[in-house]
Amino acid sequence: MDRLAFYRALATPSDRRILFMVLDGLGGLPHPKTGLTELETAHTPTLDELAAGGDCGLTVPVMPGVTPGSGPAHIALFGYDPIENRVGRGVLAALGVDFDLRPGDVAARINFCTLDDDGNVVDRRAGRIDDSLALPLAERLDSMELADGIECSVRHVKQYRACVILRGGDLDGRIADTDPQRTGVPPLAPRALTDAAGPTADLAARFIDAARLALSDQKIANGVLLRGFDGFRPLPSFADLYGLRSAAVASYPMYLGAARLAGMSAHRAPDSPDGLAAAVDEVADSDFVFVHYKSTDSRGEDGDFEGKVAEIEKADGLLARLRDTFDVIMVTGDHSTPARLRSHSWHPVPLLIHSDRARSTASVFGEGACAQGSLGHVRSVDVLPLVLAHAGRLRKFGA
Amino acid sequence: MDRLAFYRALATPSDRRILFMVLDGLGGLPHPKTGLTELETAHTPTLDELAAGGDCGLTVPVMPGVTPGSGPAHIALFGYDPIENRVGRGVLAALGVDFDLRPGDVAARINFCTLDDDGNVVDRRAGRIDDSLALPLAERLDSMELADGIECSVRHVKQYRACVILRGGDLDGRIADTDPQRTGVPPLAPRALTDAAGPTADLAARFIDAARLALSDQKIANGVLLRGFDGFRPLPSFADLYGLRSAAVASYPMYLGAARLAGMSAHRAPDSPDGLAAAVDEVADSDFVFVHYKSTDSRGEDGDFEGKVAEIEKADGLLARLRDTFDVIMVTGDHSTPARLRSHSWHPVPLLIHSDRARSTASVFGEGACAQGSLGHVRSVDVLPLVLAHAGRLRKFGA
Repeated sequence: MDRLAFYRALATPSDRRILFMVLDGLGGLPHPKTGLTELETAHTPTLDELAAGGDCGLTVPVMPGVTPGSGPAHIALFGYDPIENRVGRGVLAALGVDFDLRPGDVAARINFCTLDDDGNVVDRRAGRIDDSLALPLAERLDSMELADGIECSVRHVKQYRACVILRGGDLDGRIADTDPQRTGVPPLAPRALTDAAGPTADLAARFIDAARLALSDQKIANGVLLRGFDGFRPLPSFADLYGLRSAAVASYPMYLGAARLAGMSAHRAPDSPDGLAAAVDEVADSDFVFVHYKSTDSRGEDGDFEGKVAEIEKADGLLARLRDTFDVIMVTGDHSTPARLRSHSWHPVPLLIHSDRARSTASVFGEGACAQGSLGHVRSVDVLPLVLAHAGRLRKFGA
Repeated sequence: MDRLAFYRALATPSDRRILFMVLDGLGGLPHPKTGLTELETAHTPTLDELAAGGDCGLTVPVMPGVTPGSGPAHIALFGYDPIENRVGRGVLAALGVDFDLRPGDVAARINFCTLDDDGNVVDRRAGRIDDSLALPLAERLDSMELADGIECSVRHVKQYRACVILRGGDLDGRIADTDPQRTGVPPLAPRALTDAAGPTADLAARFIDAARLALSDQKIANGVLLRGFDGFRPLPSFADLYGLRSAAVASYPMYLGAARLAGMSAHRAPDSPDGLAAAVDEVADSDFVFVHYKSTDSRGEDGDFEGKVAEIEKADGLLARLRDTFDVIMVTGDHSTPARLRSHSWHPVPLLIHSDRARSTASVFGEGACAQGSLGHVRSVDVLPLVLAHAGRLRKFGA
């Protein structure tokens, strides 16, 4: 069965607005002293009230036991099978900075790096140079000549990150990363993972050489590492599948890239509750607003339990400001990032869907309460259909 | 994997009798004043006792977020994939009135309707004429000559509803409904949805013309609207799959039709607990008895919360009378019909399976208790295998 075609055939219009809020890395693990997770520790009056008037459960992002990256985790939340629809980080990055990707383009993430005189990697992130230093360097690499009939575009993303897009001819994105993942060794060559990708790998190698030449006057950002090569294959859009006017609000480009894959309009906001709230106000004509809150994940990756608690509380305050103009409110994470693990994890993620059509069995929003919620465990890919149902956007199946 | 073939290979005999009771539209939503659903509000000593000695959970009828019609919802409960096995309402209606459908037959539901002098629909249900008026009209339409080699049969179903069955030649049921779904316009033509259905659509058009002529002396029921065209493709039967002698008891023909698709013997009962109980007594030689209780859904569709509560209590009384002759008792709904929504919905449905082999974690039967039950969330299609397991009818898989 074609799952998306099935849901598409049931789609019907509605004027009930949807807020689809993702607190990155929301799920956690209990603090050894209190037995409470980050979310259970946080003072979250709005999330608790929404949970008490909503359906709660836990999401399994990809498959049981699988720790997802942000890309597949978001693709799943947007209702696409994250295993069938693998999207390289390069494509997400290019979409995230509003690059007009076309089918057949191949994109890769660039990290500026520091190389020593022998060509060995000294710093894989070039001292985490900031936007003001990196932006002109990315512009310097844009539109370099690699081969006849090939366009090569470079765009700055954020800090030491950029992306490169190849267009023209018969390109194939199945190419291995050049980042050696450690220092003291040279970057890897861009190796074709399949014969068909050989010519594209050759272009990538030419790009790397040309970039090194163009950056030869730099001390810090004098090289590039390429990751997440992929060809662009657009997904069926929310407009096409469900008739949704959808908008994405995020402060990090990659999440806007994932949203643009689904056909959402992308709105980059300052990295603060105020910035996000203002951006949401500006998309008042959208049926569906995806809001991405990044810092919960960042504090989890830092191993900062109290910092993650504080970010969850800030997100709760943001939600209090946003909720009034929406009929259906979904809150979950793309995955868990327990401070105790300092990394993404496979643990199921708290989920709430609040509307006037919910069963309301929980009293607070937390891992323990959600484990006993009315939704049980659901796969992330099933969250969107549930949200559409609450919004009255799926017709009856069969008579 | 062929799921049915897998279970079939495990089937083994047992003398443990199964009661498979479906309270139509059982699932509900909380009353705003009490926070309790219809089922949670009802006084149901028998259901509570069965739940306390049984395994409880919630069923997802078709897919998350999907509101099912009664047809697919029952097909799923009978263990067949409801998306792979779509069965038109015409086929269910014909089977429900015990018409001897054969593979290749095409059937459609008939609604008698009222047309004005210009041929526009005035009443899509002909004033909801009762059985005594509609039955002779259906007989008048039976066995009309449409074309050489084509048999055309008409059977009365209930009230203003009948069905037509075409047999002979190379028929194809992919034909659109002729019901325009509103008044003041003429019926739609029976349009072929695929080239192969063109000749069958022509036969349907001839039938409609002939029916209008035959009903031309009528003021109220002077036309027909056709819905739910489908060709008959039998499903593998309960006898063939599981070696079950199975019987269905229902007051509405469509549910008997769904049961007959699974090869059950069909027993139409008066629409009352007494009538259903008497019919169940008459099938004492069956291993498996499906009992359909309709009025819970009807009161839900009426938006009558208290009425639905009362029907659940009546069904509880029926269950008290039936339970003693069964070893395994399953109770669930085909879908939810919350009075608050006045319609079918996607919400998971309370489920109990009572036998001496259950884990018994619940204390009452209700949406909230079932969300925390020993079965968790299960797809409706998985209910039958669980019931067969409780009945000792599935052998060990592998050594």
